[in-house]
Amino acid sequence: MKPISIEEFVARSVGQWRSMRTGHSLAFQQFEEIISDVHIEAIEPNSDNVITLLKKHGMSGLKDLSPFLMRWEADSDWEPDNPSDSLKGECILIPIKTDETSGRFIRSVGYAEAEEATSDYTISTDSTVHLKTVYGGSIAEERIWFVSDHVRCRSSVIRTSEGSGVIQTSFASEVRRVKA
Amino acid sequence: MKPISIEEFVARSVGQWRSMRTGHSLAFQQFEEIISDVHIEAIEPNSDNVITLLKKHGMSGLKDLSPFLMRWEADSDWEPDNPSDSLKGECILIPIKTDETSGRFIRSVGYAEAEEATSDYTISTDSTVHLKTVYGGSIAEERIWFVSDHVRCRSSVIRTSEGSGVIQTSFASEVRRVKA
Repeated sequence: MKPISIEEFVARSVGQWRSMRTGHSLAFQQFEEIISDVHIEAIEPNSDNVITLLKKHGMSGLKDLSPFLMRWEADSDWEPDNPSDSLKGECILIPIKTDETSGRFIRSVGYAEAEEATSDYTISTDSTVHLKTVYGGSIAEERIWFVSDHVRCRSSVIRTSEGSGVIQTSFASEVRRVKA
Repeated sequence: MKPISIEEFVARSVGQWRSMRTGHSLAFQQFEEIISDVHIEAIEPNSDNVITLLKKHGMSGLKDLSPFLMRWEADSDWEPDNPSDSLKGECILIPIKTDETSGRFIRSVGYAEAEEATSDYTISTDSTVHLKTVYGGSIAEERIWFVSDHVRCRSSVIRTSEGSGVIQTSFASEVRRVKA
């Protein structure tokens, strides 16, 4: 069976999701739990935001793009007076294909971060999308896959550098919110 | 790059592991956390236990088997007076290859369960081992992969039946215990 294409991955990701996410701190054996709302929508390839972001990366005139916007906000019921900025945000992502099963994501970032980030991606035979993002002091490897039309899973590991040990993992179960 | 073989998967899994595991109950948005010790050891293909288990499944004379024993016990620090049987157990697993990237696991079960179970497995291009086990009232799909020599991840989803929705997910981060 052919693995999922990046366009199909984006199309299936569009919607409102309720995310249960757990972090595992391996050194300290500590668990962290968070519930968030995640909103994903397709955006116009010709929109100003997309063209500006591509220009910053020295790109223009690309065809058949499927850019999307992701917005997230942690459920703040249990901490109403102290919302953390990192628990809320949005970014634009533009997949740039190298071939049918690999490429990279160009990503806008919020005002708090120094520069736009890119992630390499590959799609394995089981239709899992693997993302790898190199930051200044760490490397994040993420896997995203659909277990049904309405449930998406994401796992991640954080390393301090290439080939080094894993210091943290996380796992999110995301359930599509169906409008009443 | 060639994906991991089932023999290599077993060889890399052998050892003592500390497991942090989280369950996500999707309907109730509840988290469950558990820390366990997991012990995995290779066992002799000619041992009585292995031969008996194969016979029950109508098999004999198979070559190049890599059976192993798995034993697990939840950390009971926080519930010393009420250990649950399901949090402790052991079983023998025998991978039976169909080809280089698929086959099934034959598995012994404890005294509390009615019958021996089998799981189908496939190995995807990213060296993730996918297991699928059909029980009386549910289907478990599990993924196991190494993120380094000493960190193994496992995710699972539970469905009520083929093609139906997912009611529960889980994720475990397993860190190899190195002897002092």
